[in-house]
Order: sequence, then structure tokens, then C-alpha cells
Amino acid sequence: MALILVTNDDGVLSEGLMALFEAMKDVAEAVIVAPDRERSATSHSLTMHRPLRVTKIKEAIYAINGTPTDCVTLGIGKILGRKPDLVASGINKGGNLGDDITYSGTVSAAFEGTILGVPSFAISMLWDDGGFHFSTAAEFAKKIARAIVDKGLPRDTLLNVNVPNAESVAGVKFTKQGKRVYCNSIQETNDPWGKKHYWIGGGSPSWEEDAHTDFLAVEAGYISVTPLHLDLTNYDALKKIEKEWKEL
Amino acid sequence: MALILVTNDDGVLSEGLMALFEAMKDVAEAVIVAPDRERSATSHSLTMHRPLRVTKIKEAIYAINGTPTDCVTLGIGKILGRKPDLVASGINKGGNLGDDITYSGTVSAAFEGTILGVPSFAISMLWDDGGFHFSTAAEFAKKIARAIVDKGLPRDTLLNVNVPNAESVAGVKFTKQGKRVYCNSIQETNDPWGKKHYWIGGGSPSWEEDAHTDFLAVEAGYISVTPLHLDLTNYDALKKIEKEWKEL
Repeated sequence: MALILVTNDDGVLSEGLMALFEAMKDVAEAVIVAPDRERSATSHSLTMHRPLRVTKIKEAIYAINGTPTDCVTLGIGKILGRKPDLVASGINKGGNLGDDITYSGTVSAAFEGTILGVPSFAISMLWDDGGFHFSTAAEFAKKIARAIVDKGLPRDTLLNVNVPNAESVAGVKFTKQGKRVYCNSIQETNDPWGKKHYWIGGGSPSWEEDAHTDFLAVEAGYISVTPLHLDLTNYDALKKIEKEWKEL
Repeated sequence: MALILVTNDDGVLSEGLMALFEAMKDVAEAVIVAPDRERSATSHSLTMHRPLRVTKIKEAIYAINGTPTDCVTLGIGKILGRKPDLVASGINKGGNLGDDITYSGTVSAAFEGTILGVPSFAISMLWDDGGFHFSTAAEFAKKIARAIVDKGLPRDTLLNVNVPNAESVAGVKFTKQGKRVYCNSIQETNDPWGKKHYWIGGGSPSWEEDAHTDFLAVEAGYISVTPLHLDLTNYDALKKIEKEWKEL
């Protein structure tokens, strides 16, 4: 039977994780290895400066005092006992679109699975203060998990899935990564002793108007599926600078 | 006069940072905004769960209790007062090659600069227990900084530079990102109460034998310059799954 490692960056207590876990159990054997608390925006951080503790919460659910990347590394290397067939990361509370994916712990967990040779996907649901329709994402997670287990994925490639926060969707679009145009918003605040601090966050992202992006797909009510590559080389730029920067 | 933001992930006290700062001062006005302590393997983490403190160490040197990405965000958004012409990140103690770049705080700082529209490069020196020949990297940093300020960089593209740890180099090669083949090594250790913990790290990386990679260039004694792209979309895979995954 296929084995699925389920993780996230919102921590082991997250509703989104549990929704994904239940969905994955419909597809195959599923085991959670997730951070013991929220680790949002940890990106692809790997904890190397201290040892990590694995706590078995109950059958098939493990928590680690580390990052999503730590969880995938220890899950595959130590906890599962055999190489899983799939890494499923999410369901994240909040979309992971455009350039913002590089901050994302959810997406980075799927990156780590891919580096370790396991087909992987990340799944996120768009933010809404009113709550999350996790079942919409969970149903799609089953489909995509079955497709990956059946067909595999292209080499060194993971899928980044974003789901509109709604009871139903318009369909599925295969997309490219969009391009964000905002700067991170920075709020000034004082500590109790009156000293100025800065708090990064918030702000309203806006996006370049470019066809076929992840952003436009979810905005139009579609599920967005973007294949991402481990190889970040810009080959066009490589040709250009090889020719033009000879004097270096 | 051109303005250069200098940062790193080894922290504001690092020798490598000071070597890069001195080099950049030969090229333009340079300001350090760097983490107050070591933040290796923090990847593209952004601190959004707490406010950040900026400490002016002395003229043109600022420390932040956050990650390299925080430093670039606050440096550009708050500290410098005007948009810099270049972000220079390093000189890292240890190479940032192949898939490992996604863990790297050094490379992520250059990613963040690029996202914010500032041409950026990361520079790292290969690890050697015997110490670091920072002057080799610092001399090259001047050349590449001048080239970037003069010619600019292709859109959404940063340069990842790796320098052999030697007094002299064989030359410069423009390269693609190599592919790592090892798993992260995991060491088991006990806490003082006898409870098992896991420590990620160490291990001997090996690399796929593929021509024109960053890894092969530095192994042959060359400085490696790899152009990396913010867009991680795998366009070949996108075409393939668009055709083959219609039933989703």
C-alpha cells in the first residue's frame, strides 16, 4: 500500500493538517510528521544548530520541535521506516502564490520531499477572515494525490496547489508562478520602554497582469496547480552573461 | 554615488561580512544591515510573528534581531532612506551550491533584494577547517559589483557566486545549479535525561556528474557564477501535465 507523509507549517494542531490527513487516509496509508507549533514563513529553514525532539502524539501522528523541512527530513530519514510514495503539505491557511512561495514553509516541505526523491505537493487555501472551506481543498487533495501516485511527477518537480476559499470551484487550471509587485509592508511600533521597533507584515499584495498565473486562476475561482522546479538557474540569463561578461 | 546594502547570514560580527563591506566601500557607498547573530540555514524566513529591533552599531553598520530576509526588507524599506543600487550578501563561510541554495540565508537575502527590485548577488567561500582566504572572494566581489552596477542584471535574476578557498583561482565560470545526491545526515543523541534526539547536519554531499555545474567549477578551482531566477515554474512540466492531467 502506498505511504503518504503529511506535514504543514501551521503546526500539528492545525485544522487544515487534520483535513489533509483524513483525505490522504482515503488514498493510502498516511502518517503525520509536523511541527509542534506554528512555523509560518520559515521558508526552507533547516535546524542544524540544536538537536530535535520527536513526540508521538498518537498512532501515525508525530510532532517535532522544528521546521517543516526538519519534519520531512526526519520523517523520511528516521520516523516512517520506509521511503514514502508521496509528501503532502498543507492545507495552509492562506494562499502561497507568486514570489511569496519562497517564504512559505508549506511549499518548502514539498521542496524538501522532492530533493529527497519523493513526489510532493503543497496545498493552500486562500485567506478569508470568515473561516476556511477545508473540504473543498481536501477533496481536490485526494484527486491530486491519486494522480501523483499513479503517474508520478516530472523529475525534480513539485506541485504547488492553491484553492479558492469557497464551497465549490470553477475548475482546475495549470498555471505559472505569478509576479508580486508590492513591497512588504512595515509597521512601526514601540516597546514598553518607548523604543522603536518594526513589524513586517500585512499590506495588500498586488500582482502583475500576466496571463496564466496562479494568482489569476484563483481570482477567477479556479484551483491553481503550478509545477515548480528545484533548478532555479535562469538559462536565458546564463547565455546572455556568458557572452557579455567575458572580462570578469 | 551608488549605494550598496551589505548583509549576510553569519551575523554582524562575521569576518566574511567585514571583508565584503571593505570591498564594497571601494566600489560605492556601503551600509551593513545584518542579523545580530548567526542565522545560517534560515533560508528565506521572514519574521512576521514579532516586531524587530534595529541597533546602530556604528556609522553605516546596523544589526537586526532577525533573519537575512528581514534585514533586506527593513534595510531597503526603512534604514537606508533611499533605494540601494545593489544588495551584496556574504561572504558566507561555506559554499552554497546545487540544491543547498534553497536552505541558504545568504542566497535568500539576494532573493529578497531581487524581489524588491534591487540587483543582488550572494557570495560564498568554500569550507575549509584551516580558515578562509576572504581576500580572494573580496577582490572578485568588487569586480562583480562594478559589473552589476554598470550593466544591470536580467529581470528577476540574481547571481549566486561561489569562490574556491584558495589564494588564487583558475578563472571564472558561468554555471548552472548542480544537483545534490545525498540525504541530510541525521545523528542520534540523548538529552541529559536519556531521551533520544536527532541532530541534522554533517554528511558528505555528493553531486551528479553533469557538465557546467557550480559544483564542478569550484572543484576545478574556478569561481562559479550562477544566475538564478525568481520564477520557479517548470515550463516543460507545465506543458506536459496540462496535456496529460486533463481529468483532474
